[in-house]
Amino acid sequence: MKKRIYLDHAATTPVDPAVIRAMRPFFSEQFANPSSLHAAGSEAQRAVAQARRTIADLLHAHEEEIVFCSGGTESDNLAIQGTIRAHREHGNHVITSTIEHPAVLETLERLARRGEIELTKIPVSEDGLVPAERVAQAITERTVLVSIMMANNEIGTVQPIADIGRAILAYRKDHPGIYPVFHTDACQAAGTLDLDVMKLHTDLLTCNGTKIYGPKGIGLLFVRRGLKIEPMMIGGGQERGLRSGTEDVPGIIGFAKAFELAQKRKEKENVRLVALRDRLIEGLLRIPKSRLNGHATERLPNNANISFLDIEGEAAVLYLDAKGICCSTGSACASTSLDPSHVILALGMSYEAAHGSLRFSLGHATMKEDVDTVIKVMPKIVERLRHMSPVNLDMKYFKKG
Amino acid sequence: MKKRIYLDHAATTPVDPAVIRAMRPFFSEQFANPSSLHAAGSEAQRAVAQARRTIADLLHAHEEEIVFCSGGTESDNLAIQGTIRAHREHGNHVITSTIEHPAVLETLERLARRGEIELTKIPVSEDGLVPAERVAQAITERTVLVSIMMANNEIGTVQPIADIGRAILAYRKDHPGIYPVFHTDACQAAGTLDLDVMKLHTDLLTCNGTKIYGPKGIGLLFVRRGLKIEPMMIGGGQERGLRSGTEDVPGIIGFAKAFELAQKRKEKENVRLVALRDRLIEGLLRIPKSRLNGHATERLPNNANISFLDIEGEAAVLYLDAKGICCSTGSACASTSLDPSHVILALGMSYEAAHGSLRFSLGHATMKEDVDTVIKVMPKIVERLRHMSPVNLDMKYFKKG
Repeated sequence: MKKRIYLDHAATTPVDPAVIRAMRPFFSEQFANPSSLHAAGSEAQRAVAQARRTIADLLHAHEEEIVFCSGGTESDNLAIQGTIRAHREHGNHVITSTIEHPAVLETLERLARRGEIELTKIPVSEDGLVPAERVAQAITERTVLVSIMMANNEIGTVQPIADIGRAILAYRKDHPGIYPVFHTDACQAAGTLDLDVMKLHTDLLTCNGTKIYGPKGIGLLFVRRGLKIEPMMIGGGQERGLRSGTEDVPGIIGFAKAFELAQKRKEKENVRLVALRDRLIEGLLRIPKSRLNGHATERLPNNANISFLDIEGEAAVLYLDAKGICCSTGSACASTSLDPSHVILALGMSYEAAHGSLRFSLGHATMKEDVDTVIKVMPKIVERLRHMSPVNLDMKYFKKG
Repeated sequence: MKKRIYLDHAATTPVDPAVIRAMRPFFSEQFANPSSLHAAGSEAQRAVAQARRTIADLLHAHEEEIVFCSGGTESDNLAIQGTIRAHREHGNHVITSTIEHPAVLETLERLARRGEIELTKIPVSEDGLVPAERVAQAITERTVLVSIMMANNEIGTVQPIADIGRAILAYRKDHPGIYPVFHTDACQAAGTLDLDVMKLHTDLLTCNGTKIYGPKGIGLLFVRRGLKIEPMMIGGGQERGLRSGTEDVPGIIGFAKAFELAQKRKEKENVRLVALRDRLIEGLLRIPKSRLNGHATERLPNNANISFLDIEGEAAVLYLDAKGICCSTGSACASTSLDPSHVILALGMSYEAAHGSLRFSLGHATMKEDVDTVIKVMPKIVERLRHMSPVNLDMKYFKKG
């Protein structure tokens, strides 16, 4: 079989062999329930405590600030639903951006439709940035939550989270008693960026295993000391009552190992990834009527998102797939829908440009040859699809209206 | 190191080697996101679909009735919160029993304390049975949900779920428009009992991997066709919108394999377990001032729960642990609390009897020699603890006041 070129690391990553090795003993040997009183239970509990410490240290957080859960979606939902329910007496206004992950945006829009919250969606710049001052201006005395992702899963734009955090802190200082809690979804960022919650000034932070060469089905919510949130899942009272359910011990161990490896490798690996990414972007932009989505420099080291006019992204994904190249249109989370990406549209791009967008997300296994293969096959695929296309749009159709 | 005798299978089981083998390729080879459009994504999607079919067949359910989630606690919470939120216009009365798992009982009690529901807790018989007719009598025109566990996690009593299901069906037939939904938590039952949702007449059924030699962090909720429930986690719309979040592919594969193995092995294995269980119960009841908790025959094949007067269960667990024997007091989920078991108290037992209760739960690895070791060491431990005890209670103190 032909080697597959996997360029969909933003959808999910393979589990690192070192992570599998770390998890292995916890399936059948040290398999006990950490809540059990006996020695086998204590062993499991110690392993979970050690993993929690590893992650807390990497985040510059305290151990009791780490709440393990089943993944990014649960963590986002817990952050949002948990904060809104716990702080009803402070208000019901929430601020987010137009390009958040569905786990944030859909959750908030559903609450807004039901009238449970009042939602302000900050528009982003043409390259996908959320300006810190726009967030600060949107805060009212009824604002209980601000949720802005650290790096976008589709276009890779990295937000000025520390600036937003400082702006919220400043607002709190000037308005005692008003308490907008700051949440960031850092799932896409955790593999390559620094996640120091002290520097980022976030009160809540989401990340997960499946985007950083760790296992699926595991994530965490950082909850700053003293911050009250309502649990979603009630039961045995695990995770200090914030998330009941038997701890997924192998998942937690693997997650901690993956996080540790990612943070250790990132400096060196990012240099390599940025070079490959830029080579790919440069190569693909040589194709006529193409455009880079997202910010040129404030961008994840492994993300290249390009729109090609007059093609359907889905068709291009399938043509590339036939050549053994895995990539995606929008995010995997919404890729089974044929609606154009809400993220690309939010950049002010046209429906046509959004429909013709492709995301290539690089990873540890990506080599220069892989990038060159994509650069080589893509022009032909675009040409072929354009040949079949009923339309032939002008460059001005990248932009809306 | 001395061989450890693990008799805490009700807390969690080791993962079966065949389950680990089934999961293995899905960590680093077929690791893609099932929502991805490319071939790697489709492979993952097909594997999940196959696992869903396997489980649906075993439950006599349709594939689209299976909602995968992170475990028993999430499944219980989704069943309860999801039903109550979706059926507010039908009423807010819920029926449960006094001996449910905290994932059911705490969730319901929290909703009741907030005034969101009106809760009726059916008392159980002295051996822990929930009489079907008592459930039927408690239904009112405002009842939206009945949640009764299939087998109790502490005392092993198996409930007449099919009878309760039929009683609810009959009520629905006689009262068109009144719609009590029937949920059962079958986590403890899935390893040894038949789970045919057609025969059980349940609308919602919870089970998970960690109690049946499958992985932790994975579970499912069976949701009968046409039944409306509100999702707890919003996002990418996975699991037909009922449970968003990237599917835990290895977990799902492992869960299906474990479920298949458990259901295939149960007939033969149950005979073996019942013989061992009864040998253990008989041996332990020779100790003075001891009593079996739960039903003598309507009981899980692997559960022995005994109360000993004048001892502290926690102390006995630690003494047994020193001898290499792992067991528990109440459930692992609540075992870090020093409160006596709400289940034992609900049987009409005294605080003293509840404090002195021990649960031994047997499993595949349990041998006759293991049982005999417990029978041999337990009298000395009880004697020693009673020697240290400040009280010396009469047999009548087993029962409440």
